[in-house]
Amino acid sequence: MSPECAAARDSFVDEVDIDLAMTAGGAAPFDIDGYERRLAWVYLSRVVAGPCAALSALIESVGVVEAARAVRECALPQSLRGPTEQRRGTDTAARDLDLMERLGGRVVTPDDPEWPAWRLLGLAQLDSGRDRDGAVPLVLWVRGPRSLLESSDRAVAVVGARCSSGYGNQVTAEIAGDLAAKGWTIVSGAAFGIDAMAHRAALAVGGVTIAVLACGVDRPYPAQHDRLLTEIAETGLVISEYPPGTPAHKHQFLARNRLVAALADGVLVVEAGLRSGARNTVKWARRLGRPALAVPGPVTSAASAGCHRMIRDGEALLVTRAEEVIDEAGPLRLLLPDPSDSPGAALSGDEALVFAALPEVGSRLPRELAEQSGLPLPAVRAALPALELAELVGANESGWYRKQPARRHR
Amino acid sequence: MSPECAAARDSFVDEVDIDLAMTAGGAAPFDIDGYERRLAWVYLSRVVAGPCAALSALIESVGVVEAARAVRECALPQSLRGPTEQRRGTDTAARDLDLMERLGGRVVTPDDPEWPAWRLLGLAQLDSGRDRDGAVPLVLWVRGPRSLLESSDRAVAVVGARCSSGYGNQVTAEIAGDLAAKGWTIVSGAAFGIDAMAHRAALAVGGVTIAVLACGVDRPYPAQHDRLLTEIAETGLVISEYPPGTPAHKHQFLARNRLVAALADGVLVVEAGLRSGARNTVKWARRLGRPALAVPGPVTSAASAGCHRMIRDGEALLVTRAEEVIDEAGPLRLLLPDPSDSPGAALSGDEALVFAALPEVGSRLPRELAEQSGLPLPAVRAALPALELAELVGANESGWYRKQPARRHR
Repeated sequence: MSPECAAARDSFVDEVDIDLAMTAGGAAPFDIDGYERRLAWVYLSRVVAGPCAALSALIESVGVVEAARAVRECALPQSLRGPTEQRRGTDTAARDLDLMERLGGRVVTPDDPEWPAWRLLGLAQLDSGRDRDGAVPLVLWVRGPRSLLESSDRAVAVVGARCSSGYGNQVTAEIAGDLAAKGWTIVSGAAFGIDAMAHRAALAVGGVTIAVLACGVDRPYPAQHDRLLTEIAETGLVISEYPPGTPAHKHQFLARNRLVAALADGVLVVEAGLRSGARNTVKWARRLGRPALAVPGPVTSAASAGCHRMIRDGEALLVTRAEEVIDEAGPLRLLLPDPSDSPGAALSGDEALVFAALPEVGSRLPRELAEQSGLPLPAVRAALPALELAELVGANESGWYRKQPARRHR
Repeated sequence: MSPECAAARDSFVDEVDIDLAMTAGGAAPFDIDGYERRLAWVYLSRVVAGPCAALSALIESVGVVEAARAVRECALPQSLRGPTEQRRGTDTAARDLDLMERLGGRVVTPDDPEWPAWRLLGLAQLDSGRDRDGAVPLVLWVRGPRSLLESSDRAVAVVGARCSSGYGNQVTAEIAGDLAAKGWTIVSGAAFGIDAMAHRAALAVGGVTIAVLACGVDRPYPAQHDRLLTEIAETGLVISEYPPGTPAHKHQFLARNRLVAALADGVLVVEAGLRSGARNTVKWARRLGRPALAVPGPVTSAASAGCHRMIRDGEALLVTRAEEVIDEAGPLRLLLPDPSDSPGAALSGDEALVFAALPEVGSRLPRELAEQSGLPLPAVRAALPALELAELVGANESGWYRKQPARRHR
């Protein structure tokens, strides 16, 4: 064992002792196995510093503690010697956990209840041979008060051009603000332009936002977003798969983009030039089976050219407002009837009453629907737009009518 | 025979006599059969004033002269009695021909060489029972110096909102101007807004434009476009299927839209509100198998909402500039290789030489291509973008390379 490894082991033992002592008078017994596993995860995360499909496969095969031992002792297949060579001799796991605690943060591992396992499932299913960077992250380094699992339960990634236009900023503020106000978490990359505007729009309406960094969560990147990241960490989450202190490198942004896509129900690009990194995030969304959405803009604006290209080439679906994003990213699945059910079977409350008041054929005025349903007119007026959004009803000159439940032609 | 019919027959005979006298000393023998047929077409066009599938079927069955006789004598199936009732007693055919001549115009019938038969084939193939208004026009009343057949050979319909925005006007001017400058005829409806801008853009570059009216070609509609229509009739074509003097009625605009779509290789909508008539033209384009294209705009602009809806719903393809319109509307079919041929087989001139200078695999700099092809560097530089537009070559950091000929994913 190298001197570094020995020191690391001693440090590990020290920390365990301290924690044992700290929890001696507490209610829950200290989970020494769990702590050992946590140290193993953190050690490995620092050794490879980013996604590593070969290491994930080893952990899958022998368990994380055994994998960490194998890495420490370099008892490794050839494919893992290179990636682990530089840092396998240094184990700062216990210190890293301590550092995260001092930062008000934590490390979330696959052992933790807040690990967003189903979100990351798509990454696990990618061909790891072909997608060396497509692996599931080993751990996530997290700052912020919220559960990662719950925060990413209903989430939309909003990304785009660093050099955004006034138009792009305005549309981002509107759509991301509307989404956040409706309870959707806004996931983005804290970059200049659309990313920052998306985070800020969520913060402004008291919504939840997750910043996924390509560097350690202790590093404000870009530096001008120090305060923004601090604000996000106060009410939302700042996360990274890179250990504290890791600087931002180009390839890490591409790997980061896959996490942005993986953690959301869909990826929305508001503005993107033809060579924008947002197109990389869209590529990940498509590979992960997430809807990719793009906002159009003036064809005279270079900042929209990437969006137009993606829409034109069938890589992204055109959307113009939050309702259309929600329509694609998923929640209306819950409201929309199963095709095998009768239309409206999934409805409840006023919407169900108003829908029931509509005849199978023909249309009714809101006043007639109020009489028929027994609801006050304002309640009818409030329910109709939601039913329309769910594509259950439509309106024409003679009033509101039931629509046949058919998915729109694409 | 009614007194009106008798008078009409006498008038018909008079006119024939006059014309026979006029042509007696001429070189070509007067085609009395042809003239009789022409009078029959014109008489029927005025009787039904617009498309009439039942009458087209009768003409198809018994010929135009016999059909005209049957209409005059009301020896008709029940389905044709109603549509012909109001005007079958009045035959102004000879006077109409005279009037058109005085207007500097003419009547184009299916007997004429400039009849755009293959353009109108799609209308003939529509289910005439379902599409009463989808019939082939009986005749086209035409003002303007050009052959209708030749002018509609490479044509794009450019239509859109009457209440267009400054953005819409600018984009229309650019795209329609570019298309017209490249030899594409611009077909539109002479309405306010996008239509008028499209015509003007074609005129401004000395291009060809066709205005399809929903009223007689002697009627400036809208009145404010009197001068525009006069200009169009001087260098392009003003056409209608409605006889001179016919005022514009609402249902005629919908029928007019089908002609706009039928006479072009594709329909481009630059701006359209959610209830724009341009969506009706797009509907016709789709039914006729013509590509429907739409230009996006700011999502904050109501004038683009219809375009966005059509793109989103898969009814129109997003385009941003003339090259993309041409790519969809067709001409590159000629440049693009047949999949069964070797790539580039359809090329000629410098493009063929430059393409031949590219290796099957790997890339070359323009300088290397100049050496290899024997062309001067500027000629190589001029040929490469055209090859790129044809999707035969691409460029990356190391130079230009051959692309596999595959249609873009939709």
